[in-house]
Amino acid sequence: MNIHRVLRDLVTTARIPDLQHRSLRVVEDDSGDLEVALDAVGTRPGDFVITMRTSAARHATGDPSITTDLTIGGIIDHWTEERWYD
Amino acid sequence: MNIHRVLRDLVTTARIPDLQHRSLRVVEDDSGDLEVALDAVGTRPGDFVITMRTSAARHATGDPSITTDLTIGGIIDHWTEERWYD
Amino acid sequence: MNIHRVLRDLVTTARIPDLQHRSLRVVEDDSGDLEVALDAVGTRPGDFVITMRTSAARHATGDPSITTDLTIGGIIDHWTEERWYD
Amino acid sequence: MNIHRVLRDLVTTARIPDLQHRSLRVVEDDSGDLEVALDAVGTRPGDFVITMRTSAARHATGDPSITTDLTIGGIIDHWTEERWYD
Amino acid sequence: MNIHRVLRDLVTTARIPDLQHRSLRVVEDDSGDLEVALDAVGTRPGDFVITMRTSAARHATGDPSITTDLTIGGIIDHWTEERWYD
Repeated sequence: MNIHRVLRDLVTTARIPDLQHRSLRVVEDDSGDLEVALDAVGTRPGDFVITMRTSAARHATGDPSITTDLTIGGIIDHWTEERWYD
Repeated sequence: MNIHRVLRDLVTTARIPDLQHRSLRVVEDDSGDLEVALDAVGTRPGDFVITMRTSAARHATGDPSITTDLTIGGIIDHWTEERWYD
Repeated sequence: MNIHRVLRDLVTTARIPDLQHRSLRVVEDDSGDLEVALDAVGTRPGDFVITMRTSAARHATGDPSITTDLTIGGIIDHWTEERWYD
Repeated sequence: MNIHRVLRDLVTTARIPDLQHRSLRVVEDDSGDLEVALDAVGTRPGDFVITMRTSAARHATGDPSITTDLTIGGIIDHWTEERWYD
Repeated sequence: MNIHRVLRDLVTTARIPDLQHRSLRVVEDDSGDLEVALDAVGTRPGDFVITMRTSAARHATGDPSITTDLTIGGIIDHWTEERWYD
């Protein structure tokens, strides 16, 4: 799993039906690279989270027919890694 | 999911049957790297979109027998990320 | 999908049975990085092609029991991208 | 498989049910990049391990319904690679 | 598929049962980056080989229950690529 920080929501009015109405979040890694993840746990901006890719991302939503390739699967209790930027 | 900007269409007269007649788009990421994505929502050049990879890409087309590994699954309503190049 | 240029054939006399006798090609991307792709459309050196990865690569061969992770799925009619090296 | 070094445990009180109560470890590669892996063999900090990605990660847990995309599958007996940092 | 050079064996006495007793090899790419691959063809140090990733890696072993994500699937007859380092 990767470690990401939640930045904010992402709105996509035009989207495929398979994403249903699940919440999408813009997340960043420790290099500042941005990706979009489906939120399966309920996060707030600033949370440090773990994310799953590939087929695990679909199953982590609780419904493998949801076509995400990156899903937030947990909130890290404390993240004090000194290498994290900023 | 990744964030891409749609550049233009891509024509491949010689192609495998599994791609059917689905529209392909050249997309770029925030580094200017180019990839080719199947368009499942109907986009126009300049749109900022989210794209799915791996098995999610096939399912996002609505027909998992379509052998794409990158599919446009939604159009971002507003994208004002200051890190995006240009 | 990725954009690759076909360089030449690759011969592997000792290979697993699951690759059957399918043709393999050395391909390069716009950075000059080399990979090996199964050719499902019939290409010639110099062709610009689109390639599929992950499970889409197996299905793109027409026989998902073929264990490739990169398959050439189409020939680009015209490729005039100025960013392409050389 | 990748070669990782185990750094420490990772606690995620809020997590999806599919991860069950499996132990998660922060691991680093030879560049110092950090990822989170499910531990299927029982490791200690400092161990050099091999890790599996994609669908192999789920099956390596012994229960493919566990939605991990990175699983520790073995402890390397001796690792004396001079390229490893530090 | 990727092009790798076989360096040497890797011993993991503590390993998950799904890897069975298959031989693992340390392989390097043309940048000198190291990975661990399951050997499905019988290689020797110094061989240039092609490797498969993702679900193709499991099927390439002849037994998809083996949880590898990188498998050696063929030995290249001649490899004279001038870009290869060293």
